[in-house]
Amino acid sequence: VEITTPDKVVASIVATAYQALENAGKRIRQVSAMGLCIPGQVDAQTGVVNLAVNLNLYDYPLREAITAEFGIPCVLENDARAATIGAYHFVQRQEMVRDIAFINIGTGVGAGVMINGRLHRGANGMAGEIGHMVVEPGGSRCNCGARGCLETVIGGRYIIQQATAAGLASGKEASFTAYDVYRASQEGHLAAQAIVRRVGEYLGRAIQWLILTYDVEKVILGGGVTSIGEAFWQPLNQTLLHLREESSLGVLFSAEKVVLLPAGYNAGLWGVVCLAQEAVKDGWTAVGVPATSAD
Amino acid sequence: VEITTPDKVVASIVATAYQALENAGKRIRQVSAMGLCIPGQVDAQTGVVNLAVNLNLYDYPLREAITAEFGIPCVLENDARAATIGAYHFVQRQEMVRDIAFINIGTGVGAGVMINGRLHRGANGMAGEIGHMVVEPGGSRCNCGARGCLETVIGGRYIIQQATAAGLASGKEASFTAYDVYRASQEGHLAAQAIVRRVGEYLGRAIQWLILTYDVEKVILGGGVTSIGEAFWQPLNQTLLHLREESSLGVLFSAEKVVLLPAGYNAGLWGVVCLAQEAVKDGWTAVGVPATSAD
Repeated sequence: VEITTPDKVVASIVATAYQALENAGKRIRQVSAMGLCIPGQVDAQTGVVNLAVNLNLYDYPLREAITAEFGIPCVLENDARAATIGAYHFVQRQEMVRDIAFINIGTGVGAGVMINGRLHRGANGMAGEIGHMVVEPGGSRCNCGARGCLETVIGGRYIIQQATAAGLASGKEASFTAYDVYRASQEGHLAAQAIVRRVGEYLGRAIQWLILTYDVEKVILGGGVTSIGEAFWQPLNQTLLHLREESSLGVLFSAEKVVLLPAGYNAGLWGVVCLAQEAVKDGWTAVGVPATSAD
Repeated sequence: VEITTPDKVVASIVATAYQALENAGKRIRQVSAMGLCIPGQVDAQTGVVNLAVNLNLYDYPLREAITAEFGIPCVLENDARAATIGAYHFVQRQEMVRDIAFINIGTGVGAGVMINGRLHRGANGMAGEIGHMVVEPGGSRCNCGARGCLETVIGGRYIIQQATAAGLASGKEASFTAYDVYRASQEGHLAAQAIVRRVGEYLGRAIQWLILTYDVEKVILGGGVTSIGEAFWQPLNQTLLHLREESSLGVLFSAEKVVLLPAGYNAGLWGVVCLAQEAVKDGWTAVGVPATSAD
């Protein structure tokens, strides 16, 4: 279903929230706060969606609209950033770390970074847009207009595109997914193996770059494509092993540094839960955000 | 002259400092503090050099040794980080910015990042080691052991190596520099032009990656190779223009975002001057560093 107006976006969110309440057997007055994340450029402080192409939202005060509907505080965040917080929350349960990078490999590719336990947003709120690093000059055309972006090699949309071009999807185009490409690779299909190997190589190097630029303690991987599990991990691990063995800086790329989120873990969901909990702790109300909680 | 023991390193620093004092017509009691930067892994807080391969220093308390010699507070920092602070200081004089990346292109290649006006060191003090990002799998062997590190394409040592392999240095090997390669390129030498173009392309993409990962306001370039000026800038600008035009994210790579330090500006020197001034302001003494200045 294509959503084309702000009103429809809000109506869809409201319907989803009421459905969730019904499923949980709860009423809205039992809820302290809600959290929302969307794909697009978001000002988390003002609650305004600056730009969300897929939702057709431009400079739209989405948080205000949702708060008005439910009468409880609402936090709004970009989806990749929310998932970064959720991923951070996941590793925190096992180990005390402060500096992490999270890479989401779904239809597209994005990343987020926490430095000293805080989200690093950057000057324009664009930090972590690694999906558009040009890694293969003159390569495939990306949605953004450039050629050879990282996303065009490892993004789910493009994995399917590459496999379709290699004839792997013939007769099942409608239901064909990245999962099918990985299964074909495991079954010995050469074109599928080449695609899967390339994903491992380019992602492995992107992980090396993130470690060398930020010097993070952990790089966490999540998103639809990673949920394939072992078949996804194996070619990536090959690349990481190779990078590790060759260089005197290899100790920085140790195996324990890269964490694959469990397939069932919804990082974006847990991220907004964390943010909503913080908002409650910081004294957010349905009327507004206290000035002191600005960062 | 090869320096092989800590005593010789200290003696060489002391001699250089006294020479500088003599040149300036000053005496040591007229100096409030001194700053020192070295190539290697440094703990700026304790003043210990963890590892400096070229100086043969391992876990050596260099700051203590220098302070003991001169009886004034001394700050110690890694050279790339000190230069990052110096580069930040340079742009601050023209424009109020808080987030910058600095890339040093000398014999080797390193970077530093300031986030919100503070140096980002990373979990192991290794943030910014972009010279060892593998950008050309199976490429030339790097000093670090890996193949195809960024440094092997754009580092001064390797620019000379590539040009020598192409026969450009024949008969003048002893005095041959990266500057000669750029001059040969301007004079129409095809092999030199190919090397210079490749430097522009790989550096341009590295700048794009730094902007997409950190979302900095400025990327500042310095180091011996950049002091060549226009001949260095032109092929780099070509790449940046191309990246800018192609992508809908191109606005992030605008021309004003990349700054070339003037050839005469010694970023490392000004960096340690800034650090020494701060140390005086923070109440450092020859005896020790106040606990409150820890970060």
